Amino acid sequence: MTLHEQLTVVDGLQISNWTRPVLEELRAGGVTAVNATCAVWENAADTLRSIGQWLELANRNPDLLFLATNGSDIDTAKRQKKIAVFLGFQNSSPFEDDYRNVELFHRLGVRVAQLTYNNQNLLGGGCFETNDAGLTRYGRVVVEEMNRVGMLIDLSHVGYRTSRDAIAASCRPVAITHSNPLWFFDTPRNKPHDVIQPLVDRGGVIGCCLYPTVSGGEHLTVESFCTMVSRMVDLYGPDSIGIGSDCTRGWDQEFVGWLRNGRWQPTDPAHAPTWPNWPKWFTGPHDFPRLTDGLSASGLSDDCIAAVMGGNWSRLFTSVMDTTREHQNV
Amino acid sequence: MTLHEQLTVVDGLQISNWTRPVLEELRAGGVTAVNATCAVWENAADTLRSIGQWLELANRNPDLLFLATNGSDIDTAKRQKKIAVFLGFQNSSPFEDDYRNVELFHRLGVRVAQLTYNNQNLLGGGCFETNDAGLTRYGRVVVEEMNRVGMLIDLSHVGYRTSRDAIAASCRPVAITHSNPLWFFDTPRNKPHDVIQPLVDRGGVIGCCLYPTVSGGEHLTVESFCTMVSRMVDLYGPDSIGIGSDCTRGWDQEFVGWLRNGRWQPTDPAHAPTWPNWPKWFTGPHDFPRLTDGLSASGLSDDCIAAVMGGNWSRLFTSVMDTTREHQNV
Repeated sequence: MTLHEQLTVVDGLQISNWTRPVLEELRAGGVTAVNATCAVWENAADTLRSIGQWLELANRNPDLLFLATNGSDIDTAKRQKKIAVFLGFQNSSPFEDDYRNVELFHRLGVRVAQLTYNNQNLLGGGCFETNDAGLTRYGRVVVEEMNRVGMLIDLSHVGYRTSRDAIAASCRPVAITHSNPLWFFDTPRNKPHDVIQPLVDRGGVIGCCLYPTVSGGEHLTVESFCTMVSRMVDLYGPDSIGIGSDCTRGWDQEFVGWLRNGRWQPTDPAHAPTWPNWPKWFTGPHDFPRLTDGLSASGLSDDCIAAVMGGNWSRLFTSVMDTTREHQNV
Repeated sequence: MTLHEQLTVVDGLQISNWTRPVLEELRAGGVTAVNATCAVWENAADTLRSIGQWLELANRNPDLLFLATNGSDIDTAKRQKKIAVFLGFQNSSPFEDDYRNVELFHRLGVRVAQLTYNNQNLLGGGCFETNDAGLTRYGRVVVEEMNRVGMLIDLSHVGYRTSRDAIAASCRPVAITHSNPLWFFDTPRNKPHDVIQPLVDRGGVIGCCLYPTVSGGEHLTVESFCTMVSRMVDLYGPDSIGIGSDCTRGWDQEFVGWLRNGRWQPTDPAHAPTWPNWPKWFTGPHDFPRLTDGLSASGLSDDCIAAVMGGNWSRLFTSVMDTTREHQNV
């Protein structure tokens, strides 16, 4: 049995167009659990439809996946050779302007929510806005509510000031599920030291990300990526680093335009966004074993690799999601 | 015929619970036109319902009011002894995250929209947030779209930085429909000189407001209010000042809790908000003649009073709303 086969691999984020074949790619890559995006710009009603589609997919493929609701489901999935799918939002748009929607979507199984997606919203600033006013009054209400019900706060696409405010405001550890340090690749999507350090100081985890626009594109080598991960382990400790691949399997070109522009600005047909090219050594979740090999080659211990490849997400998910029995029903 | 009866009175904003009796109060007070709020926290679907109720009210009371779509409708209403109702938003929440909704609601008759209501939203910062990051990327798209279709931008409940950004970004004059200068009464709802000056420099109008929490409450005298209006005329010129009463007729106590807290934070039943008391000399739109008398007593000329009581709103509404024929259909 290879090292990779022994690991419990947890992916901090994927935003694929989910079907049985896409889920089989995860199983082929030895991925046991994933934070699967089910809303980006969607409002509450659109998100209900998206969750309904997930319920159907899970009902039709019980041999392959189940919808997970707490950290211990990851071990169950590993034992049963299934995928534990944690439903997650990449935006707080499904909450709309009603804090009660946090508990509502928690009851429907949502366990992760990013506070903002690129743009400013009712809760705070997004990473691609020029300015960020920090966590709003409503944002503080939502953070408190997410803490109460046991929903993990994600800061990957969140602005600088709102990220720092949310780390300070949350009484539970928070996550950056899919970003890299700013020194590795300079983009507003990656994170400076003074966001990562307070996050890890409070028990949070940052998932190093393979998406080309935050990791360097198709010419990224496995050595370069794994050296960055190793250095992150050196800087912030082996308990603070994970992987968030940000895999985007199964989509047409139109979907990247939706991610970029939503409905908030017109897409110029002459300059419609297209998907970036991934590095040849990692084009999807089936390539996860190469990441384990790369981390070994970079000199990390097997224990440390186990933590980075899934153990840290498992611990964080458990500590945030397992609150009272009351909130564990789906 | 009294001076007041000769005037064309335009009220920059009312947020009443509209019925025939409430509209008859306007006619009794000699009010010819009003920016009538039809959305505060509502999303697109809720706002459609609100506009539908206005269509029904207008259809049932054609002797009393009509839904106005451009500035010249104000003269028509004066001639016909009717009320020209301009539908307005106090928030951009009906636009949701889709800039196309600006034209959609314009086609349904909406002619005024405040960019934010107290809180931060997708477009910018609200006056009661601690920080304001200014007009967002989506906010700039919406301002451009409002300029294009001919919808008046209102900054009354908008934050400082977003207000200044919107004044600079808009190619048409903008309004503060219902706020006072900060020096008159110190509240985040009132406006500093460095917001009012650039607004009037670009042809905008500020409506001095009688709502108790921005004007001083039930002990406000007609002399004090009219002296403030006169001083505003001295400071910014007779073409820049209007009246925005912010009348709130016909509501129960629950509605003030909705205005204050929306769905974004719980209302503490032990400290539920209640309506403030209005000064005895101005308790509703039927008291508008007292305002004309007070402005006369404060020494303003009849021409200046005509401008402040309605002429300036008429000119601004015309200059902003009367774009191409294409956009004037309801």
